[in-house]
Amino acid sequence: MKIGIVGLGKMGGNIARRLMDADHECVVFDTNSDTVAELQKEGAEGADSLQKLVDSLSAPRTIWLMLPAGEITDSTITTLGDMLEADDTLIEGGNSFFKEGVRHARELSERDIHFIDVGVSGGVWGRERGYCLMIGGEKSVVERLDPIFSTLAPGKGDIDETPGRREEHLDDRAEQGYLHCGPAGSGHFVKMVHNGIEYGMMQSYAEGFDILRNRNKEELPEDERFDLNLADVAEVWRRGSVISSWLLDLTAIALAKDEKLGDYNGRVDDSGEGRWTIEAAIEEAVSANVLSSALFARFRSRRDHTYGEKLLSAMRQQFGGHVEGGG
Amino acid sequence: MKIGIVGLGKMGGNIARRLMDADHECVVFDTNSDTVAELQKEGAEGADSLQKLVDSLSAPRTIWLMLPAGEITDSTITTLGDMLEADDTLIEGGNSFFKEGVRHARELSERDIHFIDVGVSGGVWGRERGYCLMIGGEKSVVERLDPIFSTLAPGKGDIDETPGRREEHLDDRAEQGYLHCGPAGSGHFVKMVHNGIEYGMMQSYAEGFDILRNRNKEELPEDERFDLNLADVAEVWRRGSVISSWLLDLTAIALAKDEKLGDYNGRVDDSGEGRWTIEAAIEEAVSANVLSSALFARFRSRRDHTYGEKLLSAMRQQFGGHVEGGG
Amino acid sequence: MKIGIVGLGKMGGNIARRLMDADHECVVFDTNSDTVAELQKEGAEGADSLQKLVDSLSAPRTIWLMLPAGEITDSTITTLGDMLEADDTLIEGGNSFFKEGVRHARELSERDIHFIDVGVSGGVWGRERGYCLMIGGEKSVVERLDPIFSTLAPGKGDIDETPGRREEHLDDRAEQGYLHCGPAGSGHFVKMVHNGIEYGMMQSYAEGFDILRNRNKEELPEDERFDLNLADVAEVWRRGSVISSWLLDLTAIALAKDEKLGDYNGRVDDSGEGRWTIEAAIEEAVSANVLSSALFARFRSRRDHTYGEKLLSAMRQQFGGHVEGGG
Amino acid sequence: MKIGIVGLGKMGGNIARRLMDADHECVVFDTNSDTVAELQKEGAEGADSLQKLVDSLSAPRTIWLMLPAGEITDSTITTLGDMLEADDTLIEGGNSFFKEGVRHARELSERDIHFIDVGVSGGVWGRERGYCLMIGGEKSVVERLDPIFSTLAPGKGDIDETPGRREEHLDDRAEQGYLHCGPAGSGHFVKMVHNGIEYGMMQSYAEGFDILRNRNKEELPEDERFDLNLADVAEVWRRGSVISSWLLDLTAIALAKDEKLGDYNGRVDDSGEGRWTIEAAIEEAVSANVLSSALFARFRSRRDHTYGEKLLSAMRQQFGGHVEGGG
Repeated sequence: MKIGIVGLGKMGGNIARRLMDADHECVVFDTNSDTVAELQKEGAEGADSLQKLVDSLSAPRTIWLMLPAGEITDSTITTLGDMLEADDTLIEGGNSFFKEGVRHARELSERDIHFIDVGVSGGVWGRERGYCLMIGGEKSVVERLDPIFSTLAPGKGDIDETPGRREEHLDDRAEQGYLHCGPAGSGHFVKMVHNGIEYGMMQSYAEGFDILRNRNKEELPEDERFDLNLADVAEVWRRGSVISSWLLDLTAIALAKDEKLGDYNGRVDDSGEGRWTIEAAIEEAVSANVLSSALFARFRSRRDHTYGEKLLSAMRQQFGGHVEGGG
Repeated sequence: MKIGIVGLGKMGGNIARRLMDADHECVVFDTNSDTVAELQKEGAEGADSLQKLVDSLSAPRTIWLMLPAGEITDSTITTLGDMLEADDTLIEGGNSFFKEGVRHARELSERDIHFIDVGVSGGVWGRERGYCLMIGGEKSVVERLDPIFSTLAPGKGDIDETPGRREEHLDDRAEQGYLHCGPAGSGHFVKMVHNGIEYGMMQSYAEGFDILRNRNKEELPEDERFDLNLADVAEVWRRGSVISSWLLDLTAIALAKDEKLGDYNGRVDDSGEGRWTIEAAIEEAVSANVLSSALFARFRSRRDHTYGEKLLSAMRQQFGGHVEGGG
Repeated sequence: MKIGIVGLGKMGGNIARRLMDADHECVVFDTNSDTVAELQKEGAEGADSLQKLVDSLSAPRTIWLMLPAGEITDSTITTLGDMLEADDTLIEGGNSFFKEGVRHARELSERDIHFIDVGVSGGVWGRERGYCLMIGGEKSVVERLDPIFSTLAPGKGDIDETPGRREEHLDDRAEQGYLHCGPAGSGHFVKMVHNGIEYGMMQSYAEGFDILRNRNKEELPEDERFDLNLADVAEVWRRGSVISSWLLDLTAIALAKDEKLGDYNGRVDDSGEGRWTIEAAIEEAVSANVLSSALFARFRSRRDHTYGEKLLSAMRQQFGGHVEGGG
Repeated sequence: MKIGIVGLGKMGGNIARRLMDADHECVVFDTNSDTVAELQKEGAEGADSLQKLVDSLSAPRTIWLMLPAGEITDSTITTLGDMLEADDTLIEGGNSFFKEGVRHARELSERDIHFIDVGVSGGVWGRERGYCLMIGGEKSVVERLDPIFSTLAPGKGDIDETPGRREEHLDDRAEQGYLHCGPAGSGHFVKMVHNGIEYGMMQSYAEGFDILRNRNKEELPEDERFDLNLADVAEVWRRGSVISSWLLDLTAIALAKDEKLGDYNGRVDDSGEGRWTIEAAIEEAVSANVLSSALFARFRSRRDHTYGEKLLSAMRQQFGGHVEGGG
């Protein structure tokens, strides 16, 4: 298929490459013309404006947007909406809030333009491993785009088949690594929850390794102190344990390189999806202590000391004469 | 009554003073002879050893221990146990683990020595306000010591009577601020949970004031930013709001003095009781997310950056190419 | 002053009564004409429509809205906005989201109508105790309305003065129980955080009393089991302890009535403000584990069993052959 | 090697089988003689008492204990300790508290008997996949037992090698799935933290799937409601996503079988290791909100309604006139 790709960052560029590897034709655009030039060398057709990109495609057009969530995605959709025709399709693959997808679909449908939201997982490894795709939008349109999605997805590979799926007549595409989740917004919704779970899992490992690491503290009884090699612990857990996972594979790589993690200062960013997951939980009145604690741990990591903590000391001094601080 | 008091720190010294104010006779001992001398000036009889203190009392003796929880309390009980006679009473008023009280009572009962554990709340304000006392041990012994407990407790004061208590024939002493909770250990158990709740309440205020304080961040939309006077907010909440409390009174005092809390560095200590509360909850299989989060906030406050947080950054770099840190 | 009051539920009706007790004139309206009639008997001037209420007031008018947060408040503000004139004032006293207040103020200011948001705490006790008021809006307007606010607030009463406030020249009104917090929205913002803290405090007590209550479980060692009288424990903690509070006073009342709490099924509602507090924390990137856990505990209390918990059992059966459930 | 195995439950029996498959000789004992008979049929030498089992082995003996943690493990170690000779080795493979291992090693060392603690992960899949082994004890003894450990472990299999391990000269055995962690107790310590992480990961999935499941609630806006096929979602996440893991593989199996999870009632057990992980975190003053919330979610799942939650309703009724419950 021929497809336009807007946004050639770490994700968008590799999506184009993976598609071209499978002989899809890509017309590409980015405000950074260097990235366009680079992909042209690799076989893509370059466009130096959104209009040129639209003009290079014949109806019904398919354009994949891979931009940072927020204003830029929003305004690009508005601009493209004005350039496109009935039956054209806009695919939005960024980490956008799912309610934005619902809104875009509603607005574009007024002009019979199709909106498809795709949550994309896999990070920088995706070009090689393939991307896990969570897709929302009209069924018929998603089916028309199957060649694109099946190319980007990892395929069955050597991952064990889940027993019982055959008999239940579940969706084949899930086993290829892509799924039509439901109507517009549902792709980003499933991806959002995916990232929420990711936060929880990462924090589970983080707390566990922190407990291992602090087992050698001087204040502990001497025969209950252990000086553990955490690179080896991560490695052994990859093999036959209940907690083996891809995140643990990555942990083992990082710890093999430097068990002290000296390259990191401990300030951890978060992105919209971890936050929206908690807001969705609240909206649904679902208890989500683990996912919220994982998010809050990142918030706390970026502060030196909080006003709240100083207030604790102030209260303690008031009632107990405990003098803390001094700085 | 005549009573021996061992341990003349912030709490023990004031307990002696409050008792002497009400014409009880106190024989006092501390390894720091200056504190003994000071209390002698205020009317106490000084002892320069545990044995002298025991000898200054006539059977059946009553001795109040007010020492730091742990080894020193433990060894002093052992020492005194050897010096005392049948029907003497040891009162343990420190912040000890309740299971220690259970054990002490069992061991001392073999020699017919009574053991009473008392949880004492009120901090440095107790001498004036009176102490809230949670008492465990044999009923008859607790009743014999009523003159001591009723003196130390705040009494009814001008605190409103709880409607309905009269008709239910509930324990009068609770309204005076002291309570026989049950058998040995139960006094320290109730005090332990009291402190667990205290952690949760303090952290509730801490988080709330932190949210107020951060409402003036530049990244927020301008008309949704507020630069609030937190000393005034604390003050207004003392008056008719649902969250008025003694801890809020203390917060208002601290914030009136310095709304920026510049005297504190944000590192907050914790004591055994907050920890034991979580262990008791686990033992009982009771969910206690708030009390444990309050404890963990203090742990986190004492660390600059954790190994766990660095691990989060390491994973993020592995899968997403996010480069964090640099220190 | 003469003031219009719209919404005569538990809160609005008592606000009118407290104002009339102090000789303010109230014109009242509610869609439920019975409540209007009742207040007429107590001295209010009744109106049978919003327009009548507006007409009964002379410019510059002051109207207090006390309606459930959400659509009804929103549409009433729109309707009144069309009826009012420049320099009239709308006071919004419901439990509304603070960003709504920011928006209303902006929209009404286009027609020079003043918008004041007031967070009101005190519940059903407020008529007698007075209401704690957190006020947002233009300074000059808030000052003009001082007679209203000072009447509704509790006043200094016999609550101890906070040492140090005098010297710092802090706002006098806070000591009376009302505070001009800042621009429009800030009143509801401070009230929202107040409720967030309230959730945390309530859950702190809830967990603590749950731990006390479960100390008599058969599976615990016999001498570490205590059968505590929780009505007495609540009462004794009111007296000199660190965790005394108004919420504890209410707890003592409820437990004196029925220590088993047999009237309640354990399903606990939550309102918008607890939720918005977490969203505000997320927006500010402030860690709020205690306040969010308190909210989630209420969510969980309203469900019998969650899908997530069943999934835990399903995983356990897959890896460990643990068979759980059976229903 | 020849080895004695005591305890032939789900784990012990399969350990014997996996060893015999690799031509190790096993002498087996269990108080349930049926399980002994069954293993005899599969080639093991049966013993009808601990003494017989000891007598069937020649010095230096190796005996693997695979019993439920607690009293039975404890008393069996005591009994065997009396039967064994200097230089014999006891391997304790149950889910025991690591401090028990420290104590056993100390006590047995007085008679020159070696104590090795092994944390075993892999569940019912271990016989086929191999077991992940975390080993504590004297280095020379662990090395002597290498044939046993290397047989039980999964071996390298087709799991990708972790880049960078070679250059760092890290322990080869970790890549085979077994690791000498450190001195006695450290094997069970690492396994304990492993299980703590497992709880956190499981709860991360549980909360995520709960949020997905509840997205179809009637009270949500219609175009923001999604009726997702969770079996397909679990499947697609196994393929190229960041959160792929063995636990997710198991989740996919369970959901393919019955997406409604109708076989489970939602009451989830917990074992000692999840609890001890929190106690270890507290002992080390490490913040562990995620791991503790995961534990508490299981506690809460086993209760219908809590006393604490009823107390929340009672307070709400006192201050707000909110009537909740009625049962």
